Amino acid sequence: MRKGERTKEFILEQSAILFNKQGYASTSLSDIMAATKLEKGGIYNHFASKEVLMQEAFLFAIAKVEERYNTLIEERKDARSRLHAILEVFKSFITNPPPIKGGCPMLNAAIEADDALPILRPSVRRALEGWRTAIKGILERGIARGELRRDVDPEGFSSVMLAALEGAIMLSKMYRDPVHIERVLAFLEVQIDSFEVRPHLYAGG
Amino acid sequence: MRKGERTKEFILEQSAILFNKQGYASTSLSDIMAATKLEKGGIYNHFASKEVLMQEAFLFAIAKVEERYNTLIEERKDARSRLHAILEVFKSFITNPPPIKGGCPMLNAAIEADDALPILRPSVRRALEGWRTAIKGILERGIARGELRRDVDPEGFSSVMLAALEGAIMLSKMYRDPVHIERVLAFLEVQIDSFEVRPHLYAGG
Repeated sequence: MRKGERTKEFILEQSAILFNKQGYASTSLSDIMAATKLEKGGIYNHFASKEVLMQEAFLFAIAKVEERYNTLIEERKDARSRLHAILEVFKSFITNPPPIKGGCPMLNAAIEADDALPILRPSVRRALEGWRTAIKGILERGIARGELRRDVDPEGFSSVMLAALEGAIMLSKMYRDPVHIERVLAFLEVQIDSFEVRPHLYAGG
Repeated sequence: MRKGERTKEFILEQSAILFNKQGYASTSLSDIMAATKLEKGGIYNHFASKEVLMQEAFLFAIAKVEERYNTLIEERKDARSRLHAILEVFKSFITNPPPIKGGCPMLNAAIEADDALPILRPSVRRALEGWRTAIKGILERGIARGELRRDVDPEGFSSVMLAALEGAIMLSKMYRDPVHIERVLAFLEVQIDSFEVRPHLYAGG
């Protein structure tokens, strides 16, 4: 990586942490200058405005979360294992949080993007739809391949799984207790296992 | 209500809306002065500091949400009807939102309380525990009375139900589409119905 790219990535990482912990609207350019030890010009050299920096820092934070999922999901081949891989990665965040501290960057940005910072909404919505369609796609392919029962509802369950996981982060952060995430993961595991077609039930052995 | 009480309630309502939409940290005293058309002294006359106003406005917003639940839940007597009542009230917020606009005041405050505004965390946590123990209590009493199956897990399901509902609000706000809330409600309805003890299965008729 060239020096300019390294500086740009360093600004993205530091501002993503500040945005995720303090909120996008509450984080000032001075906060980012203090965290990066850069002058205003050094930051605007890489990002045309705070709006551009917010968008790119959000995508940077989401990419850091997705990295861990992509590696593990590609190793798994069937629908049930892939869905369990999502829950495992999610669980790993409890003991080994992603580099952008301050909770789930999707949830945090979503709360601000809805009324306070509408400029962020299209990016958050697109990223959220990426996660939801990833779950939906695994379910759909699993049904098409005969791995999952035909009465599984990919649209419905993708919303339920994403909602429950994001809500669980909020609960566990408020209680400072991972038990809520663990309960939601255990519940979703049972649901996912119940989707599986069990050939022996039909094959008589 | 005396004039002083009316003014206090008006400040609470206006600031609760601002805090819920813009965020607690991003809302300045000037914003509250502009919304209430009051001078600084007129606000500090009722609230010793912005911190006190934030706490009281949060509790005011939560009370507005709870009002609707309490009325409906008291009318229902058995566990299954009471849990369905919670889902019905939740559904009513889609077409008839509570007076404090800007999404769920619990979810919004929780996101800020976790890193940005730790001063709010004890109140949010207490309110959240109030909602979770309400669900847990309905499940426990339902089991004790023989209405719900004995293998229902009140601790686990109370976390799952609250997480899924709060996550669903986030999804529907981002997509500007109530379908995610509707899917989560439909899923929870099926879960709750599956908890019911069906006497005819055991009584042979």
